[in-house]
Amino acid sequence: MGIQELSQKIKQKQSFLCIGLDPVPEKLPGHLKGIDGLHTFCTEIIYKTKKYAAAYKPNLAFFEQYGPAGLEVLQSVLHEIPPDCFTIADAKRGDIGNTAAAYARTFFETYGFDAVTVSPYLGQDSLTPFFEYNDKVTIVLAKTSNRGSADFQDKKLTSSEEPLYLEVIRRCMEWGSAENTMFVVGANYAEELQEIRSVAPDYFFLIPGFGAQGGTLAGIKHILKPEIAGVLANYSRQIIYSSPDIDFADAAAEQSKLITIEMQQLLATV
Amino acid sequence: MGIQELSQKIKQKQSFLCIGLDPVPEKLPGHLKGIDGLHTFCTEIIYKTKKYAAAYKPNLAFFEQYGPAGLEVLQSVLHEIPPDCFTIADAKRGDIGNTAAAYARTFFETYGFDAVTVSPYLGQDSLTPFFEYNDKVTIVLAKTSNRGSADFQDKKLTSSEEPLYLEVIRRCMEWGSAENTMFVVGANYAEELQEIRSVAPDYFFLIPGFGAQGGTLAGIKHILKPEIAGVLANYSRQIIYSSPDIDFADAAAEQSKLITIEMQQLLATV
Repeated sequence: MGIQELSQKIKQKQSFLCIGLDPVPEKLPGHLKGIDGLHTFCTEIIYKTKKYAAAYKPNLAFFEQYGPAGLEVLQSVLHEIPPDCFTIADAKRGDIGNTAAAYARTFFETYGFDAVTVSPYLGQDSLTPFFEYNDKVTIVLAKTSNRGSADFQDKKLTSSEEPLYLEVIRRCMEWGSAENTMFVVGANYAEELQEIRSVAPDYFFLIPGFGAQGGTLAGIKHILKPEIAGVLANYSRQIIYSSPDIDFADAAAEQSKLITIEMQQLLATV
Repeated sequence: MGIQELSQKIKQKQSFLCIGLDPVPEKLPGHLKGIDGLHTFCTEIIYKTKKYAAAYKPNLAFFEQYGPAGLEVLQSVLHEIPPDCFTIADAKRGDIGNTAAAYARTFFETYGFDAVTVSPYLGQDSLTPFFEYNDKVTIVLAKTSNRGSADFQDKKLTSSEEPLYLEVIRRCMEWGSAENTMFVVGANYAEELQEIRSVAPDYFFLIPGFGAQGGTLAGIKHILKPEIAGVLANYSRQIIYSSPDIDFADAAAEQSKLITIEMQQLLATV
């Protein structure tokens, strides 16, 4: 699925909800232990929330930490995601030339994801092997939602008098296109989000930072586009850990439902 | 193995050679096909070169692209690396808080590497979970050897009038220490290497960019330290693809031998 098809799905489902699958072992319900628990947790969450989600974003680290077996679980979890949902490998890879090509192959071909998150620190030749997949989506980290995003991303450059994250966005708009590129921008940085929308009016954003990190759906209203939203709003903790008990998947569905109702109301006013 | 033990090994072996295991499928000798070929290639290279190498650096992408089975090969390859060699996961990970912790666990615990390469774009909270492993080594990308390193790493910041890569180094020196942190600096950027050595005189560097990319051992002489070198010089293509034929591992050993002879001569003059 590319960005155009994703836009259609968002329009149909009236949801731009991306559910982040970041299964921290210590936070799973007590009856879910080890790698089997990881599998059950993810598949149950998907089963119960799939009618609300526009996208799923498994975080590779939480599968990789189990070694090869963890990646078998990832494959099995991916099979549970219905074809009308967009899939994002949250991998944040970034490496030079032929290594970047191998990573692109890993996520786009071996695992068959629709999209992958990438880190821009190594520059153009670390990103073009991803951009070359025109039917896939490359999601570049720009202004992330964590506190540490201030350390380097916010630094102003002498060449432009603008922060690094804007330089990243401007350059990636030369290297990729609005058809195959998205940017990660934190919902909790409202001013930056507005600024980035004005620089990249035609691009989709993947937006984390809702809930515990302080971002709200109402707060991103001004950057939404009519009908297709033009963003994926990522929720993880607030959905997947809604209940610490055996009813975790039902609780996740209930939370997802509430969020998508808010999304529908918001889209109706854009 | 930590940096202190690595220093001892370099002194004993009179080698600061790091062999990069970046097995590009199309470049392997014709008789080595698929995932079995990957395994044979890596283990034969290690078997023949281990008396010359101070370190091995498997590049995760070339294992990950085979899916879970590729990571089983990685585990098996790691078993072939003798305990007197330092092991580096070339993974270039960089993600926030608890995800970074899961990546640190993946490479330091699940796979048992001595070190892992990390990308600094997400700032402090993406790096501290790695620095917290005092007996392991976190290798931060600073000024990489690829052409794209100019795109963002070289950009001067208004706050310091210095390039981003120096800001990365100065901040990481606050967050980590010379006992558990190294920096990646390309051999092909001689001036930057000199500048970085003056900023971080007590730190180990992992140096790629020799051979095809233009760096030479003679060119890094001025930043070496007596006896322990204070650097790992990474060679990949020049060693692992020395011969495209069945004698690839012997040819790799011969190349490794020649490089370590040059290293010994160099160390004798520092």
